[in-house]
Amino acid sequence: MNEIGRDLTELTDAESLALLASVSLGRIVFTMRALPTVRPVGHILDDGQIVIRSHLGAMIVSPGDANSGAVVAYEADDLDPVRRLGWGVSITGTARILRNTAQVERYRRRLSPWVNHSTDDIIAIHPELINGFRLTVQGQPEEL
Amino acid sequence: MNEIGRDLTELTDAESLALLASVSLGRIVFTMRALPTVRPVGHILDDGQIVIRSHLGAMIVSPGDANSGAVVAYEADDLDPVRRLGWGVSITGTARILRNTAQVERYRRRLSPWVNHSTDDIIAIHPELINGFRLTVQGQPEEL
Repeated sequence: MNEIGRDLTELTDAESLALLASVSLGRIVFTMRALPTVRPVGHILDDGQIVIRSHLGAMIVSPGDANSGAVVAYEADDLDPVRRLGWGVSITGTARILRNTAQVERYRRRLSPWVNHSTDDIIAIHPELINGFRLTVQGQPEEL
Repeated sequence: MNEIGRDLTELTDAESLALLASVSLGRIVFTMRALPTVRPVGHILDDGQIVIRSHLGAMIVSPGDANSGAVVAYEADDLDPVRRLGWGVSITGTARILRNTAQVERYRRRLSPWVNHSTDDIIAIHPELINGFRLTVQGQPEEL
């Protein structure tokens, strides 16, 4: 079907997190009213964690999850639908709402909101499982 | 924090599905080994359903889900991280692997694979809950 063949290369965890850090937008996957849902959100990477700012904090991490953290997934990609090349990274991990005022203020400065909500939370996601791939043209070296 | 204010407009179901149909790439959210995960995938919209082609069919819709369908989420967006404008659509719905040979062949022709896998499935997702939004500059009419 394809005019040119593509190689799918699996990325290491370090390569995957570096690509995630190279973009500012991803998608958070969580459970809302017992159903899976997904929303686009801005992120930064800090100390190996994905840090987001969301007014849906209480949905993403319900009060019952406060101690152990909530299981979420997070995804970012840079895929060209015409050339069908690029990369995708998805992680599954544990999300916690940050409560340390100084830390929250520091992240608020780095994560300006897309829309101003009256309240929002800073959430840190610790990646547990990382899946990353890159699609390259067969026989050509990877773009770095 | 923002230099310019943004309006977040919630979209109707029809507007959301029209935007989803206007792009060819989205992200499928499913449960893999009891954990939430998410993968980018190509899609088409046909007769109100999101149709994808994936080699992870047996993960997305496990044999136990064959009759009732598997609960999944699907997301697409076109967001400009610099201007912070654009749209996002996410749905929660029921996924089924299609088995009708003629129907499967018809979709295979329309959904050419990004990478050639020896086997893949055609999966139709019936949207049950639709969430769509558009970010516009405050006080300016929506781009259509």
